[in-house]
Amino acid sequence: MNRTSGAILVLSGPSGAGKSSLINKIFNDIGSTYFSISTTTRSKREGEIDGVHYHFVSQEEFKREIDEEMFLEYALVHGNYYGTSLGPVKKALKEGKLVIFDIDVQGHDAVQNRLADITTSVFITTPTLEELKKRLLSRSTDSAEIIAKRLDMATREVQRISEYDYLIVNDDLDAAADVLITIAKAARMKIPTQQINEFVQMWAL
Amino acid sequence: MNRTSGAILVLSGPSGAGKSSLINKIFNDIGSTYFSISTTTRSKREGEIDGVHYHFVSQEEFKREIDEEMFLEYALVHGNYYGTSLGPVKKALKEGKLVIFDIDVQGHDAVQNRLADITTSVFITTPTLEELKKRLLSRSTDSAEIIAKRLDMATREVQRISEYDYLIVNDDLDAAADVLITIAKAARMKIPTQQINEFVQMWAL
Repeated sequence: MNRTSGAILVLSGPSGAGKSSLINKIFNDIGSTYFSISTTTRSKREGEIDGVHYHFVSQEEFKREIDEEMFLEYALVHGNYYGTSLGPVKKALKEGKLVIFDIDVQGHDAVQNRLADITTSVFITTPTLEELKKRLLSRSTDSAEIIAKRLDMATREVQRISEYDYLIVNDDLDAAADVLITIAKAARMKIPTQQINEFVQMWAL
Repeated sequence: MNRTSGAILVLSGPSGAGKSSLINKIFNDIGSTYFSISTTTRSKREGEIDGVHYHFVSQEEFKREIDEEMFLEYALVHGNYYGTSLGPVKKALKEGKLVIFDIDVQGHDAVQNRLADITTSVFITTPTLEELKKRLLSRSTDSAEIIAKRLDMATREVQRISEYDYLIVNDDLDAAADVLITIAKAARMKIPTQQINEFVQMWAL
């Protein structure tokens, strides 16, 4: 019964906290997963591939998809739209996969509102703001202005850690990966409320 | 940060669903644990040892401990008191242990009210009421009257499964044990709200 239904793992945390590295590291250890690829209107960074890192679309196209209710959640961040398309998520859940989301606290809100029964959420961050700043400066993909915005957003987002099921302080990638694998494996054991209700109804017959 | 604080794993479910067998089976696989021993006023069954299966006390002693607020939770079931003493739980949490509770839905309520931030809960049951009846009859430790009461209580308790984080349908002991180990390992990763608040306050300094 536990293995047939899909479930959701939400990962949030500042850009630069190492979410992508962690996801790459655990991917092979946690079984059948679908990594939700966000759709965005922001410009492609060097090395990013359309359909792998993001679905890159125009503002016009994004707004059309909003109107057609094709998003599980979306948000406007630093002037760019980011969203999660509903279709592929539903399909992956039907196939019993663990759907992994890399989304912000607003996105987490939206997922909790619609799919709380099968959702486990993890906030991933650096030990300190100082450390985050160091990492963002060293990866040198962002302008000073963007880094300032990211640090500002991070400072606001950490205030909401207690809304998450788990916190991982990523000060050691291997240790953080071990914790995330443990959490991801348990996340898969969540059963949809509808399925529980059916079980309860049948139980005493 | 994740490993230093204790956490709680609540197991509920009908007597006869295999909770004790499961706990014995997983004990060696999930690291440092403290199994909370309930205090009760019911009579000792054959083979039960005071201080191992329960702390057996008189009604008078139990009521005195209620007055002295020495219980995390307690309840009156089938005319007997069952309760969880607070002292050993606090000590085990301070030592960073995973505290395992085998308690009913009322006890789960009480734990959620006081320690929700570090609590993970699992409801364990047989596939059907019929199967539970079969198991209770075959273990022949209870009178027909007690079995009838247990079945009645089970029927009411399964209605509240959706209050639990996870459901395990114990139709195969090995498979159920694997799921419980996975859940127990993740349960240990919960961080107390107080510790999260301290982290958040220090993060941007």
